[in-house]
Order: sequence, then structure tokens, then C-alpha cells
Amino acid sequence: MIRGTIEIEFPNNETARVVYESVLFEHKTVPYRRSRMNFSLKENKVIMEFIAKDNSALRGTLNSYLRWIKVAFDVVEL
Amino acid sequence: MIRGTIEIEFPNNETARVVYESVLFEHKTVPYRRSRMNFSLKENKVIMEFIAKDNSALRGTLNSYLRWIKVAFDVVEL
Repeated sequence: MIRGTIEIEFPNNETARVVYESVLFEHKTVPYRRSRMNFSLKENKVIMEFIAKDNSALRGTLNSYLRWIKVAFDVVEL
Repeated sequence: MIRGTIEIEFPNNETARVVYESVLFEHKTVPYRRSRMNFSLKENKVIMEFIAKDNSALRGTLNSYLRWIKVAFDVVEL
């Protein structure tokens, strides 16, 4: 069993909110997940809390979320 | 700034210790890292605490550690 938390800090609350909302859309539309992910916003931080049964499932999930966050943040920064 | 913790629970303390020691070897020999990683053992859990400046750096680091852990665990399970 793998449990974890990742907190990503943004320059300000507004940026965090925009990134959070973009990724929330992906988070809600993914039909099937091998890991459970709790995705939340707290001031200027986007917080991911997860539980995964195995390592490969977690790697896949984290890669997706971190990639979505990166894409959203790159767009905000434009 | 990205901060996080990932805890991986193994079936017993001995397995956790063997996996921890295998990965510790990799952890110590990696010459250059774009993220800071604190890697520790607590009973049947291997704990990774990390700080990364950016998302891509973190993804690379987590993928390496999760892969090393998987390899070590697969060997222990044989």
C-alpha cells in the first residue's frame, strides 16, 4: 500500500485556483483510476493526497496529474 | 515549490529493510539531483520526503525512486 501527499505551491492564490480548476476538470473526467486521489486547493497550494495499491499504478497516476498541472501552469503563465 | 511525502508499506519490517537498503545504495550514488529527497525507513514503511523546484524535476526523481523500489521489491519477492 502506498500513501502520500504532494503539495505544489504557486506564486499566488489566483494562479493556484486557475491551475486547480483546470486539473479538476481532468480529475473528474478520468473514467478509471488504479489509485485513489484526493485533489484539493488550499490558498496558494494545490494538494494531492493519494492511495495506490501498487507502485506502477501510482507512477501512472502521478505522472498524469503532474503533467496536467504543468500544462495548466504553462498556460496561466503565458 | 513542490513538497511531498510518499509512504510505501511492505508486508513486513524485513522486506521494507531490504528494499530500503537496495534503494539507499542508488540514492547515495546518484551524483546529481534536481530535487532534494530524504529517504528513510520506519518499521514496515519506506518513506520519501521531497522538495523540488519544478514539476519535471520532481517527475524524474519520483519515477526513478519508484522504479528502484519496484525492482528491489520484485527481487525480494522471488
